[in-house]
Amino acid sequence: MAYLNDNYLKLQAGYLFPEIARRVREFCDANPEAARRLIRCGIGDVTEPLPRAVIDAMHQAVEELGHRETFRGYPPYEGYDFLREAISRNDYRDRGIDIGPDDIFVSDGSKPDCGFILDILGHRNRIAITDPVYPVYVDTNVMAGHTGPAQADGRYEGILYLAGTPANSFVPGPPEEHADLIYLCFPNNPTGAVATREQLAAWVQYAQEHQALILFDAAYEAYIRDPEIPRSIFEIAGAQQCAVEFRSFLKNGGFTGVRCGFTVMPKSLKAQTEDGRSLSLQPLWQRRWSTKSNSVSYPVQRGAEAIYTDEGKAQVRELIEHYMGNARILREAAAGAGLRVYGGVNAPYIWVETPAGVTSWQMFDRMLHDLNVVITPGSGFGACGEGYFRISAFNSRENAEEVGRRLAKL
Amino acid sequence: MAYLNDNYLKLQAGYLFPEIARRVREFCDANPEAARRLIRCGIGDVTEPLPRAVIDAMHQAVEELGHRETFRGYPPYEGYDFLREAISRNDYRDRGIDIGPDDIFVSDGSKPDCGFILDILGHRNRIAITDPVYPVYVDTNVMAGHTGPAQADGRYEGILYLAGTPANSFVPGPPEEHADLIYLCFPNNPTGAVATREQLAAWVQYAQEHQALILFDAAYEAYIRDPEIPRSIFEIAGAQQCAVEFRSFLKNGGFTGVRCGFTVMPKSLKAQTEDGRSLSLQPLWQRRWSTKSNSVSYPVQRGAEAIYTDEGKAQVRELIEHYMGNARILREAAAGAGLRVYGGVNAPYIWVETPAGVTSWQMFDRMLHDLNVVITPGSGFGACGEGYFRISAFNSRENAEEVGRRLAKL
Repeated sequence: MAYLNDNYLKLQAGYLFPEIARRVREFCDANPEAARRLIRCGIGDVTEPLPRAVIDAMHQAVEELGHRETFRGYPPYEGYDFLREAISRNDYRDRGIDIGPDDIFVSDGSKPDCGFILDILGHRNRIAITDPVYPVYVDTNVMAGHTGPAQADGRYEGILYLAGTPANSFVPGPPEEHADLIYLCFPNNPTGAVATREQLAAWVQYAQEHQALILFDAAYEAYIRDPEIPRSIFEIAGAQQCAVEFRSFLKNGGFTGVRCGFTVMPKSLKAQTEDGRSLSLQPLWQRRWSTKSNSVSYPVQRGAEAIYTDEGKAQVRELIEHYMGNARILREAAAGAGLRVYGGVNAPYIWVETPAGVTSWQMFDRMLHDLNVVITPGSGFGACGEGYFRISAFNSRENAEEVGRRLAKL
Repeated sequence: MAYLNDNYLKLQAGYLFPEIARRVREFCDANPEAARRLIRCGIGDVTEPLPRAVIDAMHQAVEELGHRETFRGYPPYEGYDFLREAISRNDYRDRGIDIGPDDIFVSDGSKPDCGFILDILGHRNRIAITDPVYPVYVDTNVMAGHTGPAQADGRYEGILYLAGTPANSFVPGPPEEHADLIYLCFPNNPTGAVATREQLAAWVQYAQEHQALILFDAAYEAYIRDPEIPRSIFEIAGAQQCAVEFRSFLKNGGFTGVRCGFTVMPKSLKAQTEDGRSLSLQPLWQRRWSTKSNSVSYPVQRGAEAIYTDEGKAQVRELIEHYMGNARILREAAAGAGLRVYGGVNAPYIWVETPAGVTSWQMFDRMLHDLNVVITPGSGFGACGEGYFRISAFNSRENAEEVGRRLAKL
């Protein structure tokens, strides 16, 4: 009989968000009255319509596909040049960062890329992951067989967890131990913490000393309002020799249902073979794309390009203002309810300490049953997330205000 | 220093199609005159515009995303119910095959799925692959570390190759040896061969006897014109206990640039753990999707759904008629030029024997330089493809006729 991948059996329960969906569905089925007033601040899904510039560009691209003269078949594996050039210019070169179009690989989101990156990396890497954090980093390493079984606290043997706590403002510094791969996510999901230039520089220095590779998830960079906070790891000198960056159009352009993002894999990045030769990583990534994918839908790539037009930029700014306005309302309401609050200033997530003695999932159930508000239990993001919950600012203003009012009753 | 995946270094040259693109580019740069009359029958990329029903559905879906009341964020991981239901009804239940919507997983193409399937399978499987065949099956197994190094003939140690030859009409039967995973692709890329009901039944019987898993790539099923030839492995009794099927909208609806396909993973499929327990595979596949993907762009899924409307079906039939008309022209022209010809009757590919003593790549170069026609060298599809080349019928009628005329000069 064919063998399955036993590593999947190590995974704890379901992936966080399907598990939340399941509990919410059960609650709604049992409480149809309450279900009608339910407000979802759980999964970080956008609620506002796509920018008109994106809609217009996608319409035009769809129409092109309907005529022989403008029809396009297979896209280039790494994405269309028009999009890679727009990304390089706007996100990097205009900000003084030398990332060229040929360092950029278009994908259908940073979540897939955070998993796919393991395809080209070996099995002997020592892996460090901050905690709490987006569960995909840990789960994809479990699936790839890079860990032992889960322990009682939900942590997996073999991963070096880097604790984010109020003491370090949820920005763990480099560890004493050696690590080969380090997952960093700033602005952080779920804590909303951002890393300063000095903090990122310390990580780049660590990576240089240990010849480690930083996997930097910058999916929420558009929410950074403080001009002193780096939006890219490549703002730090030396990062092009030690970091991969994941970016997304999901949360700036509202592409959660449209699906587009990209990975920056600089040509200068190297990794070693088992016999100790040092080779360039980019050709492996290129090969992965050409063998396992055919890039992203043409109308989607045109939609992403439109984010970089003047009109698109203005419309994205409005979206960000909208969500960050929600973040302020939710943050102040939670604080006003006597809760200890983090994040929500340079990120669309508010990270809230549960009242003493209340676990994350207890708080999830209390919010669901008493306030009819869906939040995300902090423990779903790692052992250090226990005792916290995440409120997402992705909502209509009306809903954010209503959640603010309900929080006051907590 | 971080470790890379050494298995990638075993891969021979580039993936076939980028290598062809490179040679064509070099030829065109050196011969600008000839470049203007170049006709591409190499990569199997569609040339005709999308069906109007698809265009209309995508426009409508794009517009929905531009308004708050109709905006949609993250799709369900396994794809929208509207599409899974349309697939289940039209491709299976209306043909008497009991495949339900919950057996269907929407993806951005069957190529990615053919690679992703290995994510959930173990490393101890004995793998059998027909030869010649679409190179993705072999290459993804090399990347996953399921093979030894390449040998002189380009074959990899550890894979059981099943030779397709004129003697078996390019439909290899089950081997004497045991295999756990078997890749079958019918209508076959590149040979255009189709498997009869009896031949597929023999494979299902083998899989039952060996408790093996068949990975059945039916990306070209829409080109089957003979009503006696099965379009799905699930037309064979017992296949739901031993087969996964990959399907694509790329070649029926012309979605090469739009990107959509699906995998049928029946609930009844099982595989074993290393300690010999027999478990259902579908939950692992579900988990893979929820952790590593967020499904396919909403407008794309609406476009795929439109293929199943009456209007869409009629328009797809026209597209198929068009390409199969090309296939007839190319097939007859190659035969008229004194070449031995296979395929092109129930598949959009014509498989042609090279003249005696001429290798596949020599023939590629001759066709490129003398006729300014790009074909695909058979050896790119495996050792058994040496001595053959593939002509793709995906072209305008005008180009197909012109290639026919040029072939006469061979």
